[in-house]
Amino acid sequence: MRATLLHGPRDVRVEQVPDPVVRRPTDAVVRVVASCVCGSDLWPYRGVRPVREPRRIGHEFVGVVEEVGSDVARVAVGDFVVAPFAISDGTCVHCRNGVHTSCVHGESWGSADRYGDMVDGGQGEYVRVPLADGTLVVTPEHPDDALLPHVLTLTDVMGTGHHAALAGGVRAGSTVAVVGDGAVGLCAVIAARRLGAERVVAMSRHEARSALAVRFGATDVVAERGDEGAAAVIDLLGGVGPDAVLECVGTKESMQQALDTVRPGGRVGYVGVPAGGPELPVPQLFGANIGVLGGVAPVRAYIEGLLPDVWAGTIEPGLVFDGTFALDEIGAAYAAMDERTVTKSLVLP
Amino acid sequence: MRATLLHGPRDVRVEQVPDPVVRRPTDAVVRVVASCVCGSDLWPYRGVRPVREPRRIGHEFVGVVEEVGSDVARVAVGDFVVAPFAISDGTCVHCRNGVHTSCVHGESWGSADRYGDMVDGGQGEYVRVPLADGTLVVTPEHPDDALLPHVLTLTDVMGTGHHAALAGGVRAGSTVAVVGDGAVGLCAVIAARRLGAERVVAMSRHEARSALAVRFGATDVVAERGDEGAAAVIDLLGGVGPDAVLECVGTKESMQQALDTVRPGGRVGYVGVPAGGPELPVPQLFGANIGVLGGVAPVRAYIEGLLPDVWAGTIEPGLVFDGTFALDEIGAAYAAMDERTVTKSLVLP
Repeated sequence: MRATLLHGPRDVRVEQVPDPVVRRPTDAVVRVVASCVCGSDLWPYRGVRPVREPRRIGHEFVGVVEEVGSDVARVAVGDFVVAPFAISDGTCVHCRNGVHTSCVHGESWGSADRYGDMVDGGQGEYVRVPLADGTLVVTPEHPDDALLPHVLTLTDVMGTGHHAALAGGVRAGSTVAVVGDGAVGLCAVIAARRLGAERVVAMSRHEARSALAVRFGATDVVAERGDEGAAAVIDLLGGVGPDAVLECVGTKESMQQALDTVRPGGRVGYVGVPAGGPELPVPQLFGANIGVLGGVAPVRAYIEGLLPDVWAGTIEPGLVFDGTFALDEIGAAYAAMDERTVTKSLVLP
Repeated sequence: MRATLLHGPRDVRVEQVPDPVVRRPTDAVVRVVASCVCGSDLWPYRGVRPVREPRRIGHEFVGVVEEVGSDVARVAVGDFVVAPFAISDGTCVHCRNGVHTSCVHGESWGSADRYGDMVDGGQGEYVRVPLADGTLVVTPEHPDDALLPHVLTLTDVMGTGHHAALAGGVRAGSTVAVVGDGAVGLCAVIAARRLGAERVVAMSRHEARSALAVRFGATDVVAERGDEGAAAVIDLLGGVGPDAVLECVGTKESMQQALDTVRPGGRVGYVGVPAGGPELPVPQLFGANIGVLGGVAPVRAYIEGLLPDVWAGTIEPGLVFDGTFALDEIGAAYAAMDERTVTKSLVLP
């Protein structure tokens, strides 16, 4: 089959690799119907995380089950499935606590599992899925082309935005600011409104993205950043920061902006993968009773809850995809995100 | 009147100072019936925070109202009152949000207020109380000698322990570990049990304090610290860390111990005043979805809620006082805490 390999900085290639097969009774093999490029894929792509040898990549995909192992009971051949970005058994104590990303049997897409066997990356034609019963979620039917992008966001960005909102404690009547206008930040706007937030301030200086934030329910847009951005949000809300700030970037600067924006006693829900930061100024947190919650989103925990709203069209997170590429155009799919000419690239094998 | 002044490292003296009077219509003057020494008083006492000139000290006291200003409506002469460690108006947006420590009109005991007038410290005979309606809480009756210590803890340590438990998200059935066996940590044990925690592990290697923790409801005691302490708690709980760890010390080491102990997806509720730390290792927080909440406790918000349990004897936080001193013995009251021969010193003017 064909699959994407990262060879080095800004060098991704589609190459022939062995077809995946069921190796363990708990495995499934899924034919990828759609996948995408994640903001976190850009780090190794940019060389921030050096690659020693060509490696498989991609951790967001949906598709159709082609084969299942003998112990797989909840997923059947022919099912359309959503694969979250982390592999989990669904039964260990951490999964039962809703923290599937800490699964004691967790594995990662695109690298060898604990038995030394390749777990394919999502940016390819087929994927061997370990712990299929725990990892995969079956959709009610096969989604049509219009629905496909929205369902695809449940593999990562929609669930991650939702995690930020939960971590921030967003509830009916909350005031919220969202730092970051990437796909996750935009999904965090959806999530905050869905949880009942009354005011959602999108912090964005990008015309198309801020327009999408408004379409997703943002009540206000603030273009300023840093100290000025914090001051502008606080001013907009009548002199008091929002109850929750959702930090969806992962830099020291974005975290500081979030901490400077939130009201005393409020919470920062953060899901931006820490990129050499963020740093947390403890005296500031302590003095103002600012809570910091979040982390790598256990999106598996949220798929069943979000799926009905996606299926019904109540939320349309798939609008974050503003570029569609064939698998053979994977280089262009990465370059477009790297150069910020698109927010998020959808890849069709 | 007589009041305590800190002159320099390990040099506290009781001296004659001007009697306080009502200076503003919102003031009250309170005759101190009991006060105490706070763990945070030990920092300037030890010279960690240098003192440039003699300064008034003490921020935990209860007493009887002697005089009120013309705008004071909720407090009357003769009332017995609890004074939390922070002065607040009770009406600003932060007070309404329950974060009285961020009151926009907040003042501090033992230093000049925004008008340049002395706000007396609690370790003296009388105190001018600004914003008396917001700051003071009237008790149902004058407490007798037996009840007095318990009521006194509502000025700080009991409310601070409660804040840690709330910040940690403790609720019915929670598993909890408490880092720190000082007065606040011991009160955190009370608070956790009061909120319904099923298991409360006190981390203590001090015989008398761990015995008191057990009396307060701790189900287990772990003497080990650091990595060994974390491992021991996790082992005790069947291989999974507690839902909440209450960090009641404020050092880098104690925070790291808390973070290493809590389960993935759990919360560290911290109230230890950061002493050159604690530091927060963001990658660890992010990877395991550990939330960190807490800060300087808005104990004013909790007095009314905790007072009935104190009054009924359901909780006995005053047992943390294991040394009682006359005001003239203030040096001994500090030295006993400094040398850890007592957990907490009660001072009777």
